[in-house]
Amino acid sequence: MANIAFIGLGNMGGPMAINLVKAGHQVCVFDLSADAVAHVVEAGASTESNAIDCVKNAEFIISMLPAGKHVHGLYLTEKSGLIHHIMKGSVVIDSSTIDSETSIKVAKALSEQGISFVDAPVSGGVGGAIAGTLSFMVGGSKNEFGQVETILSAMGKNIFHAGDHGAGQVAKVCNNMLLSVLMLGTSEALQLGLANGLDAKVLSNIMSKSSGSNWTLDVYNPCPDVMENVPSSNDYQGGFMVDLMAKDLGLAMETALNSQSSTPMGALARSLYAMHAASGNGGKDFSSVFNLFSK
Amino acid sequence: MANIAFIGLGNMGGPMAINLVKAGHQVCVFDLSADAVAHVVEAGASTESNAIDCVKNAEFIISMLPAGKHVHGLYLTEKSGLIHHIMKGSVVIDSSTIDSETSIKVAKALSEQGISFVDAPVSGGVGGAIAGTLSFMVGGSKNEFGQVETILSAMGKNIFHAGDHGAGQVAKVCNNMLLSVLMLGTSEALQLGLANGLDAKVLSNIMSKSSGSNWTLDVYNPCPDVMENVPSSNDYQGGFMVDLMAKDLGLAMETALNSQSSTPMGALARSLYAMHAASGNGGKDFSSVFNLFSK
Amino acid sequence: MANIAFIGLGNMGGPMAINLVKAGHQVCVFDLSADAVAHVVEAGASTESNAIDCVKNAEFIISMLPAGKHVHGLYLTEKSGLIHHIMKGSVVIDSSTIDSETSIKVAKALSEQGISFVDAPVSGGVGGAIAGTLSFMVGGSKNEFGQVETILSAMGKNIFHAGDHGAGQVAKVCNNMLLSVLMLGTSEALQLGLANGLDAKVLSNIMSKSSGSNWTLDVYNPCPDVMENVPSSNDYQGGFMVDLMAKDLGLAMETALNSQSSTPMGALARSLYAMHAASGNGGKDFSSVFNLFSK
Amino acid sequence: MANIAFIGLGNMGGPMAINLVKAGHQVCVFDLSADAVAHVVEAGASTESNAIDCVKNAEFIISMLPAGKHVHGLYLTEKSGLIHHIMKGSVVIDSSTIDSETSIKVAKALSEQGISFVDAPVSGGVGGAIAGTLSFMVGGSKNEFGQVETILSAMGKNIFHAGDHGAGQVAKVCNNMLLSVLMLGTSEALQLGLANGLDAKVLSNIMSKSSGSNWTLDVYNPCPDVMENVPSSNDYQGGFMVDLMAKDLGLAMETALNSQSSTPMGALARSLYAMHAASGNGGKDFSSVFNLFSK
Repeated sequence: MANIAFIGLGNMGGPMAINLVKAGHQVCVFDLSADAVAHVVEAGASTESNAIDCVKNAEFIISMLPAGKHVHGLYLTEKSGLIHHIMKGSVVIDSSTIDSETSIKVAKALSEQGISFVDAPVSGGVGGAIAGTLSFMVGGSKNEFGQVETILSAMGKNIFHAGDHGAGQVAKVCNNMLLSVLMLGTSEALQLGLANGLDAKVLSNIMSKSSGSNWTLDVYNPCPDVMENVPSSNDYQGGFMVDLMAKDLGLAMETALNSQSSTPMGALARSLYAMHAASGNGGKDFSSVFNLFSK
Repeated sequence: MANIAFIGLGNMGGPMAINLVKAGHQVCVFDLSADAVAHVVEAGASTESNAIDCVKNAEFIISMLPAGKHVHGLYLTEKSGLIHHIMKGSVVIDSSTIDSETSIKVAKALSEQGISFVDAPVSGGVGGAIAGTLSFMVGGSKNEFGQVETILSAMGKNIFHAGDHGAGQVAKVCNNMLLSVLMLGTSEALQLGLANGLDAKVLSNIMSKSSGSNWTLDVYNPCPDVMENVPSSNDYQGGFMVDLMAKDLGLAMETALNSQSSTPMGALARSLYAMHAASGNGGKDFSSVFNLFSK
Repeated sequence: MANIAFIGLGNMGGPMAINLVKAGHQVCVFDLSADAVAHVVEAGASTESNAIDCVKNAEFIISMLPAGKHVHGLYLTEKSGLIHHIMKGSVVIDSSTIDSETSIKVAKALSEQGISFVDAPVSGGVGGAIAGTLSFMVGGSKNEFGQVETILSAMGKNIFHAGDHGAGQVAKVCNNMLLSVLMLGTSEALQLGLANGLDAKVLSNIMSKSSGSNWTLDVYNPCPDVMENVPSSNDYQGGFMVDLMAKDLGLAMETALNSQSSTPMGALARSLYAMHAASGNGGKDFSSVFNLFSK
Repeated sequence: MANIAFIGLGNMGGPMAINLVKAGHQVCVFDLSADAVAHVVEAGASTESNAIDCVKNAEFIISMLPAGKHVHGLYLTEKSGLIHHIMKGSVVIDSSTIDSETSIKVAKALSEQGISFVDAPVSGGVGGAIAGTLSFMVGGSKNEFGQVETILSAMGKNIFHAGDHGAGQVAKVCNNMLLSVLMLGTSEALQLGLANGLDAKVLSNIMSKSSGSNWTLDVYNPCPDVMENVPSSNDYQGGFMVDLMAKDLGLAMETALNSQSSTPMGALARSLYAMHAASGNGGKDFSSVFNLFSK
């Protein structure tokens, strides 16, 4: 069992840390929210009054933060940056969804201090974090991937090695850009059918068994009352928020700009999600774009 | 076993008619191409010198034609239209992919003469037509659907009842509009990954097991050499031609215009496919849009 | 002065007919609305109890109807169609904005009866119709254009010869598709500036004097209170309705489909206008799409 | 007359510096290319062996560099950054087209050292730089704008005060995003007309005098042989390169991402320009996107 520090105990980080405790690891946690810390300590973790003390003796340091600037700040700030306090030979696992440029920069700086690093963003949502069924998309060397695989398997089901540093982030934004396109395409197709007299359940069934089959149609149908237990049948509550999809599409567009890639469908998806968020739907599930096309 | 007339023996119609013969039906075929007729006659069908004689004694009349105007002409032309020659009580099955307005118009006219009608467009391509594994999307009354189900099962695997007259056509264009969006979204995501250093097989595997999963990614990957036995690994030969996808997207847009539906992703897909066709790729498989986004 | 029949006295047709009366022509009018007729008769026109009696002695027949099916019906219906009642040698001017296919079909049928035809859709709105400053985009032979130029100049300022039959309709939809793109592009640019702290008047002035200059920015600014006397400064009342722009974009898309043209910006514009109309803005001025991009 | 340092003598910077010399200013220039320096020195400028010596005694420092990182590096690098060598009370004019975030950062750092700053990107191209007819979009305080207006008028015709620091860059990207949309919309409309039998000159004339009027249609027509002396009539040579438009659209998208703005038309324009550049047209004039829609 390993000695692990876990920084960032939000909706995702909290249950992930608890799963590490359940797996028998020694986990020291830190977050600016005392409530968030208390909840995980109750499950068996220890804590310290600051992040530096948390990581001092850790073999693995896991971070789960909102954006690239937070990750950059946590590790690379002068003096208080964790880079100055982590033991040589330790391994940093950053599970935040951030721009790959920051991941690569942090990886390089840590490496120069003899500290290993992988970017390991997740998919699967809060449900997956609690159930321990997340997917991890890992960027790092083969050796680094080998070092983290066991640790990650305490929190997730599918542990993918996407490539070198930053590749985890790239895989995540590619997947989520594609996901947004699937959701919009499925919504348009279902609404087109409805507007022409078809039944949404019948049409969903036909397309799911034909070449229109895709994750959003088959297991996360955006049309209310086609499926049970999906956000669309619960007034678009729960699930994956529009604001988060908009954030991920922003990262996808940055990635496309940096590589001068042409992504017309992805770019249109970003603008439609930004439009949807701006008109007051940021807190709803991302399948609520279905309503953009209603009559 | 039934007495069937089959009009239109192209790449799809020919093998479909042969499968009816194989199933033991009496099939009389007609096409303007003598070669096409000869090929099916060799397999055991009979023929006549014109369509009228073909249908005179048929319980079922199946047509497989390129566009709405051909279907309209075949059935409703003054004097020579088959409406004047088909027996009352017979059932017309039009498997052409055409606009639903024409389907509804022909259905209504035939119905007034005591002739049943279903629109029953197919998906599954030439391979599915030969193997007898097509999907049929059927528009007609419950009673009409019941009348044709057995006949269609000689040519296909999935026989869907989409709704009333015209609903088969609507389901087909909804599915194919969605399919075009899946293909473009998948192509963009894979190219974005490639441009940022990822391996196409690795990224395909990750997304297929995540929320990016869809038919084009999972079984018809547009990136060369990710999968065997798909058009992308065979220089985009075979499969479903860009020109045919462009035609289906044209029908989808007509359907959207008639119902004043908003389909931004589908509309962009149509323009990208039209652009791709116009630059000389009309005869390639529709997964060749992958190259639109290459660097 | 000419003997003119005028059919269709809506918001546009009414004032157009009155301008013909003012110019000294003998004008006999017909519309299904008795009120619409009474208004123009008050201005000096005569009327008859049906369209047929109106056109019997007319040298010029002008029609201003909502859609292609109405034009087709008015002229080509069996027996009651005006084609059977217009004098040989007369000239039909159809100022309706309709699909060019119907224009060409009606032109051909009339020509076979020795009747001339031009399609002559207008731009300039209700204000231009009242002021007699409309633009006419005329499709017909040189000879036909020469025959109608004087008549049209009583109702408009710019009389353009676009080409042969149908070309007037094509020019109109090309212009209005472009107009919708200008309006959306201008709205996005202004909103992007606003979201980044710029003043809309300052930014409008800069772009108007730079390469961003265009009709919607320069004389029809979509941002409230940048200009006086435009719909945006009057709660988007008056002007050119979203529903009418959506109709014209539908015609543009039909034209694009028929010629297999790729129009990604125009197609996106159509979907955004359809979306805007469907969310309850159909009766507002078309510059109200500015609000689609507000934060 | 002022003492001016000019850093960056590319296609734009060279002729701009020469116009300052012609206006009677003392101009000291620097560039890494000796040839570029020699050309301006020949016109009457002085030079120094490095940028630091150039700026030491300058009242105004003008820079014209490719990207934000170059501007950041030039001014803010530790020790060799010009911030450490410019006289207090001097005024920096950065005419590079870069991200507004960098402009704001440099402005703030210089201000803390008692040095004024304006961002002042230009439009008007190489032709405008030579003729001294550029437009400048200036971001800075009223006072700073007042300080630079006379200097800029030696190089340009329209000197706009866009707003505070960074506002010049925002105005520039808003204008160029709009310009790209105008060019694409005009190209689509003209191609749609051509595909339906219209003459490009006739259609251009009609739309220019109607509501389709815009800068690209009226003075920079993308269809070959409609106008003389524009790139489209010279095989798309000269003018404003596709690669530069793609760069500016990248900046526009960054600006949109940072403010979470929805810009569907602008985002589609970026992807179409990136696609056009990637297929080998990066060095052509930006009106060459006309060919994307040819049949």
